[in-house]
Amino acid sequence: MNTQLLLENVRGVLIRLEETIIFNLIERAQFKRNDVIYRPDAFGPVLQGESLVGYMLHETEKVHARMRRYLSPDEHPFFNDLPAPVLPAMHFTESPLQPNRVNLNPDVRRIYEKEIVPRICAGGDDNQYGSSATCDVACLQSISRRVHYGKFVAESKYRDNPDVFRPLIAAGDRAGLLKAITHPEVEQRLLARIRIKASTYGQDVSGDTPNRNLDPETVLTLYADWIVPLNKQVQIDYLLGRNTNDAA
Amino acid sequence: MNTQLLLENVRGVLIRLEETIIFNLIERAQFKRNDVIYRPDAFGPVLQGESLVGYMLHETEKVHARMRRYLSPDEHPFFNDLPAPVLPAMHFTESPLQPNRVNLNPDVRRIYEKEIVPRICAGGDDNQYGSSATCDVACLQSISRRVHYGKFVAESKYRDNPDVFRPLIAAGDRAGLLKAITHPEVEQRLLARIRIKASTYGQDVSGDTPNRNLDPETVLTLYADWIVPLNKQVQIDYLLGRNTNDAA
Repeated sequence: MNTQLLLENVRGVLIRLEETIIFNLIERAQFKRNDVIYRPDAFGPVLQGESLVGYMLHETEKVHARMRRYLSPDEHPFFNDLPAPVLPAMHFTESPLQPNRVNLNPDVRRIYEKEIVPRICAGGDDNQYGSSATCDVACLQSISRRVHYGKFVAESKYRDNPDVFRPLIAAGDRAGLLKAITHPEVEQRLLARIRIKASTYGQDVSGDTPNRNLDPETVLTLYADWIVPLNKQVQIDYLLGRNTNDAA
Repeated sequence: MNTQLLLENVRGVLIRLEETIIFNLIERAQFKRNDVIYRPDAFGPVLQGESLVGYMLHETEKVHARMRRYLSPDEHPFFNDLPAPVLPAMHFTESPLQPNRVNLNPDVRRIYEKEIVPRICAGGDDNQYGSSATCDVACLQSISRRVHYGKFVAESKYRDNPDVFRPLIAAGDRAGLLKAITHPEVEQRLLARIRIKASTYGQDVSGDTPNRNLDPETVLTLYADWIVPLNKQVQIDYLLGRNTNDAA
């Protein structure tokens, strides 16, 4: 049984994902910005109108789709035209989520390319295009997973307090939902944890490792300014589409 | 210019690769052993006789081959039947290596699957097959890169002392070459660095992160028992094939 999908394990999954995201950001930050890999058509028509990163992401998603990645309710593709799985569907733990089509990956990709990469990578071009793009795919996938785990968070919050959420959902009250899902003390603990993790894993402990240049405060900013808000948007979008007539 | 291929940068590349490998091992170690993903035919004929990990590795290499990954002299594929690049070849820094066909990836894969995975992962099955296999691909690629960087190391050592190496190569003296390339004090420093890195990055700094269970001593053992010896084998194989008539 895939216990990562149980609501009681949501917190553990989110905490463990922090290391994955920080490791991925540290890996990307060893290479320069390499702006050309985000530019559609920079490498000619062989990439079918995509940027090098977009092409790599698309091709990777095709492989993962054949391995049935996107049948799992905690995985969300960036592309819509993916092949069918070649493996039979797993018997996933019964998904605790209601059916939904919330997918904020267009925002995840735009924010990653326009806001995150410029903040974590030194400017310039080091010709490490393939290596950078491989890191980008890992970053995009882990951030997407973190952001969309908001669905599990929201479902859990709803089940804890259905009487609070039902009227907000019925009224389409986004501001009210934002207030209801926000727990400042939990966010403070999250950011404190990110700071200590980014400081520890981001340091060059041997003192002579090249290209170890990810500033922990930058990671904190990325979480506070983009990952947490996108996660909340997923929560709100999911709740607004939730059927409130069910016995939760 | 891709400065990672310059001989004077070899040491820096190897040191930076240590973090990549340790991060990848930590990521794999969060999942259980999942033996079934290494078993050919466990998922039926759709995987073309490969294990799930082998299929994922093969499909990933096809994508990376199209992005010209294997034109770089520091990259070595696990499969031989890869498609041609769709991107034009980059103007790589003139490779400092002599043409060679040394590729120990069959050993890398066997040792990774049989020796490394059982040591870093808890026994059992958690159904995280796709996630585990994705981590495996990252581990295999980074360990392969580390092992085959021995070619750059060997070339550098040869150029520093051609008079030492020429007779050993002429005589096909593997034991003599092993002695000539081995610097115990450098290995001691390497292992000391691995210990501190694995201890630092392997720790659960927030104290409540699930599945943070990679023992630093295990990482040290993996380096000492497999990664370093495979790297030396690459060095020796490369040197034995080296033309010693050139003015180095």
